[in-house]
Amino acid sequence: MNHKGLLIIVSGPSGAGKGTICKELLSRDQSVLVSVSATTRTPRNGEVDGESYHFMNRETFLSMIDEGGFLEYACVYDNYYGTPKQFVIDQISAGRNVLLEIDIQGALQVKKKYPEGVFVFVLPPSMKTLKSRIEGRGSETPESLNKRLSSAFTEIEYIKNYDYFLVNDTVCHATDLLQAIITAEKCRVDADIEEIVSRFKEETKNA
Amino acid sequence: MNHKGLLIIVSGPSGAGKGTICKELLSRDQSVLVSVSATTRTPRNGEVDGESYHFMNRETFLSMIDEGGFLEYACVYDNYYGTPKQFVIDQISAGRNVLLEIDIQGALQVKKKYPEGVFVFVLPPSMKTLKSRIEGRGSETPESLNKRLSSAFTEIEYIKNYDYFLVNDTVCHATDLLQAIITAEKCRVDADIEEIVSRFKEETKNA
Repeated sequence: MNHKGLLIIVSGPSGAGKGTICKELLSRDQSVLVSVSATTRTPRNGEVDGESYHFMNRETFLSMIDEGGFLEYACVYDNYYGTPKQFVIDQISAGRNVLLEIDIQGALQVKKKYPEGVFVFVLPPSMKTLKSRIEGRGSETPESLNKRLSSAFTEIEYIKNYDYFLVNDTVCHATDLLQAIITAEKCRVDADIEEIVSRFKEETKNA
Repeated sequence: MNHKGLLIIVSGPSGAGKGTICKELLSRDQSVLVSVSATTRTPRNGEVDGESYHFMNRETFLSMIDEGGFLEYACVYDNYYGTPKQFVIDQISAGRNVLLEIDIQGALQVKKKYPEGVFVFVLPPSMKTLKSRIEGRGSETPESLNKRLSSAFTEIEYIKNYDYFLVNDTVCHATDLLQAIITAEKCRVDADIEEIVSRFKEETKNA
């Protein structure tokens, strides 16, 4: 197993169920940490700074952008949201796996800054399921439902930028697949392999 | 999941335990088939043609070499051994996973002919374990033991040509890792992804 931690990016169209899979993964695997986003929006009732979000003012956020302090960020309805880079780098160096649940535009930004991340695209079992899941939320007008479906149509093309895809047929099965991907990635022959080879060569001399 | 099967090459130094891991994998996972080698050596008592080996005469073997009919082959003590290519290609096209347990020189030959294979290097937990495993076989002289250990020393450098490595601490754990690698590889975004994208786009029109 490699000693360095992984950055696992779970992404996909809205309604594919990436949030539920991530929640299930976190409840199963204590070695995986979730990355807490930073935001300039006002905390809502019950939200805890450093847990729900890192709350910060606009000035701090903008200067962090200038310093390259985010793996990705976006401005939504005049509020900024972003993934602080240092936390992720520190945890990975300490051998911990960091999970990032993020939309496709965000994932593409992360890929530019951290291409060695493990990029996983979550697909709904079918577009019909996607439609009924979004409808089931009850919060969509026919127009916004159509908008979401048509973005899913466009967004699926981005799957080619990912390393893995998984079909969210059941949360349990999809999480099994995600766990297998993490286990396999820890077995990948990568830059750290030199260390393992050296250890074995050293041991051979003393065997 | 991808529809095409995988060619899984399990390889590593003699004594690392690749044979035991492959046996355990085959007993657990019915979707994995083992590739049967061809050989020019005489069948031993109880060996069944097409099961233990594909037995063939030297002339047939040599003409198969000429026709590029082997993924790899070697001549050991004047007998030829090789992996027939057609069987592997047929099974993979039919969506089946084929397992090849093979030494490092053979794996390097397969890599040239089928680079899209999944190359897994099996490591013993330590060189001390490797030494005691080879000694435990009771069939080695001190000279041949030293020879095996010194080839393990050289061979471990070839790990860089592999996709994955796993440490054979226990057969059960190592087989878990191998199964995770197979599961993850079936989720890889590869050339077949176009088909999945098209299916979703088609469904979107009808959703």
